[in-house]
Amino acid sequence: MSRNIQVSELDRQAVEDQSVEIVERKGVGHPDSISDGVAEAVSRALSTLYLDRVGKVLHYNTDETQLVAGRAAPAFDGGEVIEPIYLLIVGRATTEYNGQQLPVDSTALAAAREYLDETIPELDPGTDVIVDVKLGEGSGDLQEVFGEDGTTVPMANDTSFGVGHAPLTETEEIVHTAERKLNTEYVADNPELGSDVKLMGKREGDHITITVAAAMVDAYIADLDAYIDAVEGVREYVTDLAEEITDREVTVDVNTADDYEAGSIYLTVTGTSAEQGDDGSVGRGNRANGLITPNRPMSMEATSGKNPVNHIGKIYNLLSTKIAEAVVDEVDGIRDLQLRLLSQIGQPIDQPHVADTQVVTDDGVALADRTDEIEAIIDRELGDVTEITRQVIDGELSTF
Amino acid sequence: MSRNIQVSELDRQAVEDQSVEIVERKGVGHPDSISDGVAEAVSRALSTLYLDRVGKVLHYNTDETQLVAGRAAPAFDGGEVIEPIYLLIVGRATTEYNGQQLPVDSTALAAAREYLDETIPELDPGTDVIVDVKLGEGSGDLQEVFGEDGTTVPMANDTSFGVGHAPLTETEEIVHTAERKLNTEYVADNPELGSDVKLMGKREGDHITITVAAAMVDAYIADLDAYIDAVEGVREYVTDLAEEITDREVTVDVNTADDYEAGSIYLTVTGTSAEQGDDGSVGRGNRANGLITPNRPMSMEATSGKNPVNHIGKIYNLLSTKIAEAVVDEVDGIRDLQLRLLSQIGQPIDQPHVADTQVVTDDGVALADRTDEIEAIIDRELGDVTEITRQVIDGELSTF
Amino acid sequence: MSRNIQVSELDRQAVEDQSVEIVERKGVGHPDSISDGVAEAVSRALSTLYLDRVGKVLHYNTDETQLVAGRAAPAFDGGEVIEPIYLLIVGRATTEYNGQQLPVDSTALAAAREYLDETIPELDPGTDVIVDVKLGEGSGDLQEVFGEDGTTVPMANDTSFGVGHAPLTETEEIVHTAERKLNTEYVADNPELGSDVKLMGKREGDHITITVAAAMVDAYIADLDAYIDAVEGVREYVTDLAEEITDREVTVDVNTADDYEAGSIYLTVTGTSAEQGDDGSVGRGNRANGLITPNRPMSMEATSGKNPVNHIGKIYNLLSTKIAEAVVDEVDGIRDLQLRLLSQIGQPIDQPHVADTQVVTDDGVALADRTDEIEAIIDRELGDVTEITRQVIDGELSTF
Amino acid sequence: MSRNIQVSELDRQAVEDQSVEIVERKGVGHPDSISDGVAEAVSRALSTLYLDRVGKVLHYNTDETQLVAGRAAPAFDGGEVIEPIYLLIVGRATTEYNGQQLPVDSTALAAAREYLDETIPELDPGTDVIVDVKLGEGSGDLQEVFGEDGTTVPMANDTSFGVGHAPLTETEEIVHTAERKLNTEYVADNPELGSDVKLMGKREGDHITITVAAAMVDAYIADLDAYIDAVEGVREYVTDLAEEITDREVTVDVNTADDYEAGSIYLTVTGTSAEQGDDGSVGRGNRANGLITPNRPMSMEATSGKNPVNHIGKIYNLLSTKIAEAVVDEVDGIRDLQLRLLSQIGQPIDQPHVADTQVVTDDGVALADRTDEIEAIIDRELGDVTEITRQVIDGELSTF
Repeated sequence: MSRNIQVSELDRQAVEDQSVEIVERKGVGHPDSISDGVAEAVSRALSTLYLDRVGKVLHYNTDETQLVAGRAAPAFDGGEVIEPIYLLIVGRATTEYNGQQLPVDSTALAAAREYLDETIPELDPGTDVIVDVKLGEGSGDLQEVFGEDGTTVPMANDTSFGVGHAPLTETEEIVHTAERKLNTEYVADNPELGSDVKLMGKREGDHITITVAAAMVDAYIADLDAYIDAVEGVREYVTDLAEEITDREVTVDVNTADDYEAGSIYLTVTGTSAEQGDDGSVGRGNRANGLITPNRPMSMEATSGKNPVNHIGKIYNLLSTKIAEAVVDEVDGIRDLQLRLLSQIGQPIDQPHVADTQVVTDDGVALADRTDEIEAIIDRELGDVTEITRQVIDGELSTF
Repeated sequence: MSRNIQVSELDRQAVEDQSVEIVERKGVGHPDSISDGVAEAVSRALSTLYLDRVGKVLHYNTDETQLVAGRAAPAFDGGEVIEPIYLLIVGRATTEYNGQQLPVDSTALAAAREYLDETIPELDPGTDVIVDVKLGEGSGDLQEVFGEDGTTVPMANDTSFGVGHAPLTETEEIVHTAERKLNTEYVADNPELGSDVKLMGKREGDHITITVAAAMVDAYIADLDAYIDAVEGVREYVTDLAEEITDREVTVDVNTADDYEAGSIYLTVTGTSAEQGDDGSVGRGNRANGLITPNRPMSMEATSGKNPVNHIGKIYNLLSTKIAEAVVDEVDGIRDLQLRLLSQIGQPIDQPHVADTQVVTDDGVALADRTDEIEAIIDRELGDVTEITRQVIDGELSTF
Repeated sequence: MSRNIQVSELDRQAVEDQSVEIVERKGVGHPDSISDGVAEAVSRALSTLYLDRVGKVLHYNTDETQLVAGRAAPAFDGGEVIEPIYLLIVGRATTEYNGQQLPVDSTALAAAREYLDETIPELDPGTDVIVDVKLGEGSGDLQEVFGEDGTTVPMANDTSFGVGHAPLTETEEIVHTAERKLNTEYVADNPELGSDVKLMGKREGDHITITVAAAMVDAYIADLDAYIDAVEGVREYVTDLAEEITDREVTVDVNTADDYEAGSIYLTVTGTSAEQGDDGSVGRGNRANGLITPNRPMSMEATSGKNPVNHIGKIYNLLSTKIAEAVVDEVDGIRDLQLRLLSQIGQPIDQPHVADTQVVTDDGVALADRTDEIEAIIDRELGDVTEITRQVIDGELSTF
Repeated sequence: MSRNIQVSELDRQAVEDQSVEIVERKGVGHPDSISDGVAEAVSRALSTLYLDRVGKVLHYNTDETQLVAGRAAPAFDGGEVIEPIYLLIVGRATTEYNGQQLPVDSTALAAAREYLDETIPELDPGTDVIVDVKLGEGSGDLQEVFGEDGTTVPMANDTSFGVGHAPLTETEEIVHTAERKLNTEYVADNPELGSDVKLMGKREGDHITITVAAAMVDAYIADLDAYIDAVEGVREYVTDLAEEITDREVTVDVNTADDYEAGSIYLTVTGTSAEQGDDGSVGRGNRANGLITPNRPMSMEATSGKNPVNHIGKIYNLLSTKIAEAVVDEVDGIRDLQLRLLSQIGQPIDQPHVADTQVVTDDGVALADRTDEIEAIIDRELGDVTEITRQVIDGELSTF
């Protein structure tokens, strides 16, 4: 059966050419991202558990993790957490299959702890954070097994849609890259930087302003001077990085809400604002492509924590992004591409109701000259939809 | 100081004129909406508590309510809840002011219970749903009192933005109105309809399809025939209502996932899928205008549960919608208007960084002829921003 | 098979004749008693549920309810609860039988709420107290059904023992009766008395001192004078009641920890100290006969919340008390009787390993002249052991 | 002021000479003991925290820890926990002192985790057990600081009593020693023995039966034969140990509820029955002397988790045991000694209302000849009451 792929002109300017652009990314240590990350880590662990034990992924979803902030008393050279963060893993899971008990709660807790250990090393599980779990049984109808054998394409579980874009604008790329590099490359040499880094990019014409809110870890900050140095370090690093990406004018502001006189600075014990008053939950932060982009259509669906076999909200958000990137990678002359995948409940997920592709081409490029090429790539990638499932389970795709 | 109000052509077609349109609304009994509704009810109660006790609204936010689904055994003529829903009210609140203890937990619990009683009458609080509460103290900086006296305009608490639109498209209006009327007018005569009604509108060209998922309350359904009648009743009601709003072709589908042969129907004990496997949380459902509109820019901010005095995410989402509606109401010739309000942290909230207004005019109408009029209305409404706060506290504005 | 009933002289004085005696009773509104009462109410409700649905009592026990105290701000003429009490019903229950789902959580919650409504009417469930539930499945071996048909006597589930005494000493009777009458007869006319009444009786020789700690309900107390009147009312009532029971000298002290100068009085919003700082749990307060009697052997077993079919700790504590009372009622000349029932795991519960009866006779009465009579009554009552089960389920026996 | 110390003949036989004696001890891995142990570990940690930070112990008590059992699937060579144990630390603590925040929650969690790590090493915190905490503020009156300076003797916080005995009977000594040695010496060489060892001693005349219920750890048990060997190993070890203590006839039964045919054996993943269906809470198991002794008067007071500075229930239970032991150790000719300490609320704790000492002397020994000596020791030990506080905080005294 041939797929319903439509390619048309995008009826607006490329985002890169719009006069005002806003982009946001919440770093991995942001309370919403912690929730996303834990939900997704638990999801991967459950998928793996099911595959190991019964050879297929059973019904589950863990996309409702709720983080209740703690209370902390940061201090130069190291303060302490006063009241722990409370993290409640919420969702549904199949606990029994053919008489076999499946340790879903223990698996979820282990996955959450391991994820937190890796991502927010300053956070001591069991003392700084209590991880609790409420995974109920799902509704009867949905408890049926899916993915019975690997060869079949699953059916969509819902009428839903996903949306993807490519390429990233310069502002988007700066915001995304900066957070990723701060939380990996930079922190390796600068342990004072916490994992809760939030970046807001605003472009007005050709002026890009990057506003960074960076939690500093008090154990590595001896005094106010050290703090000021730490802030300046981040500013320089992000500025350099941004200037490699764009020729536009760039301003970087870090921790602008600080008030040195009043002693009000962004100092934390654990590197995340979750330690003090900032709650978080799944699906409230970054979209599947790692960004919040008000200039573009976004899906409200939480991607993290959903099962990657037949949950269409998750699969189509990831897949549409992947396809958009593939098209832009392989086809010349595309300035902005937006792809919406609409599912039909009960139909195979490689057969969307429509793959609605809208394109802004470069000046002088006719869309008609690219349509066949674009359609072929989309068709190929849709045919390869189950690869998304595998990549998610293997942790190769980020969901937030 | 004059306000930065910009009015320009919208660089896309009016949504009404686009070829494909998708709109969704989750009814008040949907698990995400329950979370939104409880969060907002608690928010109003806390605002009122603070005003009554200390004459001003103290720092709080309750925008993280998490609902963990229960388990139920519906049956014709009335089944039962097996395992209760668990609802955790999460957020921050000020519990002490000038030595005075403030009963925030009790107030929150009472507000939640009252809201649930009114909205989902079939749900028996204390038996079918456990309401728990974790309201911590906020971060030190934010605990400072705001709104010290009524005359001052508060400062924005964040760099954020809100977005509003007007007028609603026909599809949007059908989806919104149908849910509202089903849950008020229709249910008054047809108690078998549960509060968890979810509507998905899809327009392709001039054909509008409304897909309704309507939970039925088992106590009022004697058998399968009665269920089929109930479904048909909803179908007819929504069809009639849609045909009053549009001249386009309308198809209404209700509970399409039912399988009568297999005995699989959408029967519930309490009228909400939260009783069986569907979790919910704040900010995951409808946007501030009551809809999910992938064709339009949307804010990721949760509006429900935020404090209405200086939380810019909440205020600007509500205000931009209100302004858009006012402009369209008062100015002729506007086919589609989109308004984005960008805040500046630390600036008065009636002075947004920019009020970015984009307009599609009716054929034959020049935007330039309307600009002054539009700007004047926006300026007036911005000046009246604190009215939003009052309306929210008084429950006059819906947030989801 | 004849029963192993042993009757011998008690190798100590009758408690009534000892020089010092201490007796305590925690009233129904005491946090430990609330836990006991809720646990037992839930137990009765589950027994009834199982009998109604499957015709026999399935495995359960609910003897671990934990109460976490709240916070309150009492005030003359009525204060308020600031932070609710948290009550966690803990235990095991069978949730499925022959494919039938059994609503154990909902049943438990409903029973708890109803019990609280009746017992502590000033406490508003859902606002002043959050009732939560964690009833897990029991261990595999114990999940087997017991009491398959009504005619068989169940087997003991454990090696355990129960102990009962009769008659009550005067001090015991005063303490027990005073609490019961205060919480029924007296409160009917004096609503200012809370349900949390704790009585400590101390007899030294022929002087009995009754120390009462009585929570007063603020809504009915206008000022300090009214409070003093309320305290005096309780003192007079208990004094009169005690003097009807004993000819010994009686002193009654009420709320001796009060300090009127410092404004420190025992004023509460809800009539129980659970509202402010006093936690409670099952099995920590009164023994099965309603008293704490350090002068007598006591069982550590929690009686409340255990299943009444084969839980030997519960049954033998209640049964030994009942038998002791029956013997003393029917046989003349007994000054103090103590009965210990020892179970044998796996044996029918009407065949204890030993029914060890120790007796102090009245002066001039030879035990040998009473032994046959005593043994006959014990034998008769042991044969009627299942009557205990019925009485517990019907709520005819108090367990604390 | 001289102390009210009374010494008289005990009006019953020495327990060693009674015809039937029952003694029980729940090992450290029993669910009730886990609750006791965690409560006491948290108590010690809070005392230490307060001493470190503010130089004195502030108001707290943590004597209400509740354990909700998990679910496990043990298997030869190693099974797994399916659903974690849930451990809720409940109590009161002072979180702020002179403007200084005190990390009571984090301290409690760390102490609990450390205790579990040491005591039940097979239990993986965070995966096999969730530790949660609800430590509220106490009541206003009790929040006053006590122990302001080390030299003053604190005032009793309640009218309460403690009771101690010495020496242990042979049966008591066997039961107590066996559990202690099994959980230290024996397990060092026999890792298959779990920490949940429960011993019931019953002496009838000169025949002592020790019934041991010993959880085995599945990872160290390859098959049924290995299990049978493990059971036999415990039986032999306890038999040898008992025969060193007594010349009476001894029978030791281990895991008598096993049914090898039916495959029903006492196999666990973590060495405690808390993993599968056995809940636990503070104060429901061993008394302060480590035993449950129905032949002797016992205090209902939970000793574990109470603050050791002025909580009279705790102090007097520990102190009366310590004094009884000292007397028996230093004075010849005592066959059984029972000491009850009665407090007076508001009086210094070294001045009990009465220290009521009752003694059975050896044949041929006149109590009158020992009274002065006994009184002197009691007086000396009462004068040294604050030493109890120090020993408890330093972990030198066991409370269960």
